[in-house]
Amino acid sequence: MRFAIRNPQSGYVMATVTIDTVGKHDGQSVTICGWLTHKRSSGRIRFLVLRDGTGTIQCTLIQGETSEQALDLYPELTHESSLTVTGTVRRDKRAPGGYEILASSIEVLQIAETYPISPKEHGVGFLMDHRHLWLRSSRQQAILRIRHAVVNAARKFFDDQGFTLLDAPIFTPSSCEGTTTLFETDYFGDRKAFLSQSGQLYMEAGAMAFGKVYCYGPTFRAEKSKTRRHLTEFWMIEPEIAFADLETIMKLAEALIVAIVEEVLETRRQELKLLGRDITRLEKIQPPFYVISYDEAVQILKDAGESLPWGEDFGASQETIVSNHFDKPVLIHRYPAQTKAFYMKNDPNRPEVALCVDMLAPEGYGEIIGGGQREDDPVILKEKIEKAELPAESFDWYLDLRRYGSVPHAGFGLGIERAVAWICGFEHVRESIPFPRLLDRLYP
Amino acid sequence: MRFAIRNPQSGYVMATVTIDTVGKHDGQSVTICGWLTHKRSSGRIRFLVLRDGTGTIQCTLIQGETSEQALDLYPELTHESSLTVTGTVRRDKRAPGGYEILASSIEVLQIAETYPISPKEHGVGFLMDHRHLWLRSSRQQAILRIRHAVVNAARKFFDDQGFTLLDAPIFTPSSCEGTTTLFETDYFGDRKAFLSQSGQLYMEAGAMAFGKVYCYGPTFRAEKSKTRRHLTEFWMIEPEIAFADLETIMKLAEALIVAIVEEVLETRRQELKLLGRDITRLEKIQPPFYVISYDEAVQILKDAGESLPWGEDFGASQETIVSNHFDKPVLIHRYPAQTKAFYMKNDPNRPEVALCVDMLAPEGYGEIIGGGQREDDPVILKEKIEKAELPAESFDWYLDLRRYGSVPHAGFGLGIERAVAWICGFEHVRESIPFPRLLDRLYP
Repeated sequence: MRFAIRNPQSGYVMATVTIDTVGKHDGQSVTICGWLTHKRSSGRIRFLVLRDGTGTIQCTLIQGETSEQALDLYPELTHESSLTVTGTVRRDKRAPGGYEILASSIEVLQIAETYPISPKEHGVGFLMDHRHLWLRSSRQQAILRIRHAVVNAARKFFDDQGFTLLDAPIFTPSSCEGTTTLFETDYFGDRKAFLSQSGQLYMEAGAMAFGKVYCYGPTFRAEKSKTRRHLTEFWMIEPEIAFADLETIMKLAEALIVAIVEEVLETRRQELKLLGRDITRLEKIQPPFYVISYDEAVQILKDAGESLPWGEDFGASQETIVSNHFDKPVLIHRYPAQTKAFYMKNDPNRPEVALCVDMLAPEGYGEIIGGGQREDDPVILKEKIEKAELPAESFDWYLDLRRYGSVPHAGFGLGIERAVAWICGFEHVRESIPFPRLLDRLYP
Repeated sequence: MRFAIRNPQSGYVMATVTIDTVGKHDGQSVTICGWLTHKRSSGRIRFLVLRDGTGTIQCTLIQGETSEQALDLYPELTHESSLTVTGTVRRDKRAPGGYEILASSIEVLQIAETYPISPKEHGVGFLMDHRHLWLRSSRQQAILRIRHAVVNAARKFFDDQGFTLLDAPIFTPSSCEGTTTLFETDYFGDRKAFLSQSGQLYMEAGAMAFGKVYCYGPTFRAEKSKTRRHLTEFWMIEPEIAFADLETIMKLAEALIVAIVEEVLETRRQELKLLGRDITRLEKIQPPFYVISYDEAVQILKDAGESLPWGEDFGASQETIVSNHFDKPVLIHRYPAQTKAFYMKNDPNRPEVALCVDMLAPEGYGEIIGGGQREDDPVILKEKIEKAELPAESFDWYLDLRRYGSVPHAGFGLGIERAVAWICGFEHVRESIPFPRLLDRLYP
């Protein structure tokens, strides 16, 4: 049995009540639009549970109270069928939202075909193939609502401190950190455009104009590795500040993470609970965070039986060991200059290390923030660009920033998906973005 | 004469006062960090005007009050040199911000090389080549601050109404409106990824999960045309609502534009004035906007001596004629279905027109919003995909949205650069984005 989609009336969504606000209509008759998540019957009473994106609610169908037409429909209703239920809101302490609806009538928009996602266990590949439907699950909704809160908290943090939002370009004429991990596209037949790996260089130009700027947008890395921390397309928020040094942005990074966690705890506690997150771990995220040097991190590794020659960068497993060592985020500063990108400023007191910082989330989650103070001397920067064998003409504009009123400046990037994965408490970043793009995943 | 960049001290930016807050330090000694925008001397008094991204301030150098070292430096200081000025804040009615600084000492960070942008007229090509420096001009800063306010107002509008932010993917397996205007990239050797032209299809999946969603991100069109309204990379905010029809989103679009203009008028009035914008024009942007059908728009064109056969889409010049006709935005609904994309729902009462709407900004600015109600019948949608010769396998997930609880739904996209260009009152969109990408522009 199939029903045609009804001819919609004007101002549809405005005229109905959403599930999160039924409490305001206690004792009144309302119409709810939504999808059926499950149904059950107990003797002569039938129950429909509806979701509408704002919550779920139980609708009760009782002979004598509910129309015959609705009672007749009950057996036909399948999982994810779309319908409207009209009925009286009733306070019920046992109900999840505190209210249920005593249905008087039902209007079916569509009887859904057999829904592919069932309560039984599915493999991740299957669920990812059905990501457009998987989003309807309460767990995925909780994660993405937390993501929304993370993004909002970060933007608010910078807005409130007088940063100007500058959307960075995606198409760039050159690479910032080598071309091996760059996606490229033909740009009208006569040249190539590379997809940005970071808005940083452009934010540096912005900082010289606006003082404090940030961008929030997608960035791209064509990494062939399949790890739990990598997406080919991921979102970053990147602040950059003029007249700032490493110390400034270390403090800023700490304050940002505190603000984000605070906002999530304040507005998304229910979602964290639904995910089974140990909230006490997040409540510990208070300043001051731990601050150690690269050298001290190497010592931690050594003590853990994992020796790393000085000068090498940490791998994911080493980051895990170090971050597991702390119950709060840890800021690791002054990595060997050779492990870092050309634009990093070397420590004048110790030129073999860069004035850089990575922040590792606790509980083994690894790097969520990377940044540092930028090289501000035009002569040294030019040498570094040459040494890195980058095309000089592509970076001429970037050198201009050191020719016309160069100033100490610094900034960092926060990877949104990694931050969300840590806050939600899951291993793999793939569920922390609506439609993940991975080495083997471009659909849907 | 050249000065080395000094070795920065810790917590630099935090320890100094920004120009916008000097008023709080009236009579006190402060240190300002900034760049020199101009200087002049009058008898024995010398003036330096500094900008720091938060504003500009005049610093006065007077023999006896100012250090000899600072007075000696004065002749060396070039446009855009970076420096710090320490001195006493003094109230001065004639000063732009109401205050000036009586300088006691100066520290130079860098004497800038001869700055390429001078007060004389430059061609747009030259300025765009120097976009990374051009951003420092007060006009460009005003525009991009207005852009920031537009983005914030739009996001706040949706957040406050319970929309969930869902960042849409950029890499997509297929095109939404034909492949001729798509940028593509090799995706790990075995397939192609296309850069998204719109997040809409993904927002439709989101609406079925969250009820109301929006995305804000870059979108890409490989249009070979050089017009004042097109960028190859532009940003859109796209809401999508389940259980909504054309009428719902027409009201929503109107309310959004009203909220955006209100926010700009409230927080960026100074910037509008600096741009010479006729603010009374913006103050007229109050509901209700004009609402006409495509048929009525064709009649307006005919009356203006510009005849258009029924069934053809409007060109830019025709949009200009229609939008010039109104002192407020005009919503044009129900275009011929043949001019619109496959996913548009046809009007059941008049199948030759689509349930779509474009909003044209007044004063000839043309389209800033496009949207409509989506086809929700799986059978009709499948036919439309076939008729448009789109690859069925790429849209199978999209058809799923019509198989599992299809509901009437609608949404639209607001082009940020076009909205900013209109609000700022300039013809070409290229200045309304930090780093514009055009047919012939990929640098810096």
